[in-house]
Order: sequence, then structure tokens, then C-alpha cells
Amino acid sequence: MNEYMKHKVDLINKTLLELYSKDTALNMILAQAMNYSLTAGGKRLRPVMLMAAADTVGADGDKYVRIACALEMIHTYSLIHDDLPAMDNDDYRRGKLTNHKVYGDAMAILAGDALLTMAFEVISSEAGIDPAVLLRVLWEISHAAGPEGMVGGQALDLLAENKQITLSELRQLHSAKTGALFCASVRAGGILAGATSSELAALTDYAREFGLAFQITDDILDVIGDDKKIGKPVGSDEKNHKSTYVSLLSLDEAKHLAEQSIANAVSALAPFGAKAEFLSVLVKKLLARQN
Amino acid sequence: MNEYMKHKVDLINKTLLELYSKDTALNMILAQAMNYSLTAGGKRLRPVMLMAAADTVGADGDKYVRIACALEMIHTYSLIHDDLPAMDNDDYRRGKLTNHKVYGDAMAILAGDALLTMAFEVISSEAGIDPAVLLRVLWEISHAAGPEGMVGGQALDLLAENKQITLSELRQLHSAKTGALFCASVRAGGILAGATSSELAALTDYAREFGLAFQITDDILDVIGDDKKIGKPVGSDEKNHKSTYVSLLSLDEAKHLAEQSIANAVSALAPFGAKAEFLSVLVKKLLARQN
Repeated sequence: MNEYMKHKVDLINKTLLELYSKDTALNMILAQAMNYSLTAGGKRLRPVMLMAAADTVGADGDKYVRIACALEMIHTYSLIHDDLPAMDNDDYRRGKLTNHKVYGDAMAILAGDALLTMAFEVISSEAGIDPAVLLRVLWEISHAAGPEGMVGGQALDLLAENKQITLSELRQLHSAKTGALFCASVRAGGILAGATSSELAALTDYAREFGLAFQITDDILDVIGDDKKIGKPVGSDEKNHKSTYVSLLSLDEAKHLAEQSIANAVSALAPFGAKAEFLSVLVKKLLARQN
Repeated sequence: MNEYMKHKVDLINKTLLELYSKDTALNMILAQAMNYSLTAGGKRLRPVMLMAAADTVGADGDKYVRIACALEMIHTYSLIHDDLPAMDNDDYRRGKLTNHKVYGDAMAILAGDALLTMAFEVISSEAGIDPAVLLRVLWEISHAAGPEGMVGGQALDLLAENKQITLSELRQLHSAKTGALFCASVRAGGILAGATSSELAALTDYAREFGLAFQITDDILDVIGDDKKIGKPVGSDEKNHKSTYVSLLSLDEAKHLAEQSIANAVSALAPFGAKAEFLSVLVKKLLARQN
């Protein structure tokens, strides 16, 4: 497990560096701002999940590392924009100053815009893959990142501030804000690997439950986590009057819901047998996450 | 000419409305913010140029109206982000309040993000076009909009504020900030229409000169234009201490340079004969532009 993860993450980091050096920005400061957040210690969960989903279906997921890196660019852009003073106004992320604290608001906005755009440039220039399959992957990812997915969820999040929302509203919000891109990551891996429609449905179920468990454990960490390990102050949800799984349920009930989602995610993988071991361990580890 | 333009613009506006109604955002306010700027009276230059380039090569450009609309979404996102307080801090655009003045900074950032992402969703879901051709178009557009194109140029622009730059630096800045997307628009039309490589080179020359003439006449308008017709206060470049073609040259020299670019653009169209009439008239009209 650890070796598998290390291999994938090393490959992703190496490829991000290659893509970044090949596709230099016109302006050095913009390039530095993009690179600052791309290399700020992300866990590379989404790209790892794309490659692991392809492995699970029986292909060689490493072949799709560049497309996987595009997901990390999209994820990174979303963090840069979320942290802006006009949005969540966060000074720290993963133990480092946020992008706008280092490069200023204007350059941070542009670095986010550039990373989002570059992601589509990277995918559309991928060689050796059936163009029709690549277009389908492009659609999955752009749809998940757009107004019906991640950006739509972020808008819901913004409007939910200082407001009590229901558990079902919270679930819809997070299913769009973070869940959609997890789904697209796993589905893209499956599509690239030639998954059948029932395999794709199983992967989608897995990703949906993974996303839910990820968010619940994120909310739990914001209450009981360790600042140093998370890399930003805990208690920010309460400070910002945000509804969370912990505030709407209780710590114990939230944990229980996370355990349930994790069990559902593992069940969804049953059709793949031993080939799904990595994805299975990955979701089980969420309960013990420290960052 | 006027009829041709009116037909294209009507088709674009109708299609933007369809795309927008089909692909609703999760959140109504986000959807309204996107729509506010999309329907704020843009000239639709880039989508018209995509379709006109396809016509010029001998295809039916109207077939590509959805891809053309994606260009308008990208252009609109760039205006929303450029107008933000952290960037140019403009209150008016085309005679209306800018997006963030109506919806707030956070929602304006998200509306821009959503329009950019949705553009790629629209292109990648286009049916009836050879997937390999569509991928090439996706690459042209994402490359032109990204760190080596529009966003890169915007970063250069940001860093050039309150600073005297050279004419060659100014040209590089605008060639990226506005020129690249004009080029991609015309090239995408050519590629979709099956242009030969020499036809594509001619269209590219045209677009490059068009972009230059567009920017010079933009700078001229900011000095001698009419507030009401432009829809924002004139003199903003001087107020913001921006280097322009007028400030680095003179009004007369700038006009002369624009005339030269227009003549070059018209010459580039020679291989297409009468089929290039619209593109030819379009660039000639830049000298008389009032907005």
C-alpha cells in the first residue's frame, strides 16, 4: 500500500514538474505563483485516484499520469481562489502562507485562472489515446469542475455562511464542491481504462461514498485535529459560522456516518475483487486521517 | 455586411441562451451572475470571427456556433476577472455596472471561473465533429487562453502598471492578452472548416494584424472616444498610468500604425478572394469604431 502510493505520488510530482517546465508562462512571477501552490505539499489524492481506478479496471494507470496531473491543477486552482480575501480569507494552507499572501490578490486570481486553463491544455494535447475517449474524459472533468459541480458547490457554500442549513442541503453542497471532482477523477480513470458500464457504475458509487467520508472526516478534523499536522488553524468552521457535519449532527454521529460511507465505498468495490485493494485501503484510511 | 453580421450575432445570442438554459448552475445567483455579463451587450467579435473564418475557407460557419459561443464565455470570464477590485477595479463596463458591483467580489470570481470551465464543457460535448479535430480546437483555445496567452498577458499588464515599458514590450503584452484569443478564434474556424496549412497561415496573419489594430484603436478610443458610446469613462489608461500605443507614440503615429496593420490584415486575406469579404470589411471598420 505505502509503496504503491509512494510510486504514484513520485510519478505525479515528477510529471507536474515536467509539464510545468515545458509549458512556461509568459511571465516569471505568474509561473512562480502557479508553481508555489502546485508544490505546496498536496496529498495528490485526485490524480492518485484516477490512476488507481484505471489499475482497478485492469489497465496500467501510470500511462494516464498527465491527465491525472490536470486534476491536481484544477484542485489547486480551486484552493487558491477559495483562500482569497473575497472568499474564505485564509492566510495559511498546508502550513504555508496562502498564494495571495505571497503574490498578492491579483496574481493569485491569475495563477488560479492559469492553472484551470492549463489543465484543459494538458488533457487536449495528450497523445496515444482514442480522441473520442479523451473528449469524454474532458467532458467529465469540465462538467464536474463547472457550475453544476465544484464552482456551483462553492457558490452554495458562500451563500450558506452565517446561516443554518439542513443536513440534506449540506450534503448537496459538498457533493458538488468536493464530491464531483472525486467522482470525475475515478470515472476518468475508468473510462480511460475501458471500463464497462457496470464497472463504471461501481467506481462512481465508490467515489460518491469516498467524497462523503472525506468531507465528514474533514469537518471532524476541524474540531479535534492538530493545527500543526493540518497546516492551518483548527476551529475555522466554527469561527466562520459554517454548518458542518459535526455542527448539524454531533461528533459521534458524524463519525458513525463516516464509518457507514466507508463501508458502502468498500462494498461498491466488490466486483473488482483483489484488484481494488488500493482503493479499498485508501477510503478506510480516511477515518485515521490527520490532515 | 450588416445583414451577415446581424445573422451571426442573432445566432450567437440565441445559442448562448440555449446553452445557458440547458446547463443551469446549481445555484441561481451564480447562474444570474454568469448570465448578467454574458448578456451585457458584447459585440460577439470572437465568435463571429470563428464562424466567418470557417465561411472564408468555404464551409458553413453557422454549424460551429456552439464552439463560437464557448469563445464568448472565455472572453466574458476574462472581463469579469479583469474588472475586479484586486485587478483593474472598474465599476462600469459597456454602460452597465461590472459584475462584482452587482454580485459582490466572491460571486464575480466564481462566475468567471464557471464561465471558463463551462466553455470547455461546451466544446468537449460538441457532436458531429471528428474528435481529433475537436481536440485540436480545444488545444488552440486553451493554449491561447492560458499562461502563455491571455492570462500570461494579463500578468504582464498587471506588472506594467505605473511603469514605462517599451513599444516592443507593449506589443508582446497585447499580443498575449488580447491577440492570442483572436488568433485562436480565427484558427479554430479554419481548422473546423478543414483549412489547408497555407490557408491557416493566411488566417493567422490576418488575426495577428487584426488583434494589433484592435488594441491600437482601443487605446485611441480611450483618449478621443465618447464615454456614452464606450460605456465606461474615457481616460482610464492615463488615470491608471498605463503605457498605451498613444502614450508611447502619439495620436497620429498610433493611427498610422493601426492603418498599417489593417492594410496588412487585408493583404493576408488575398488568397481567399471574394470569400474573405466579411473578414476584410470587419478589420477595415476598426478605424471608425466608436466602442
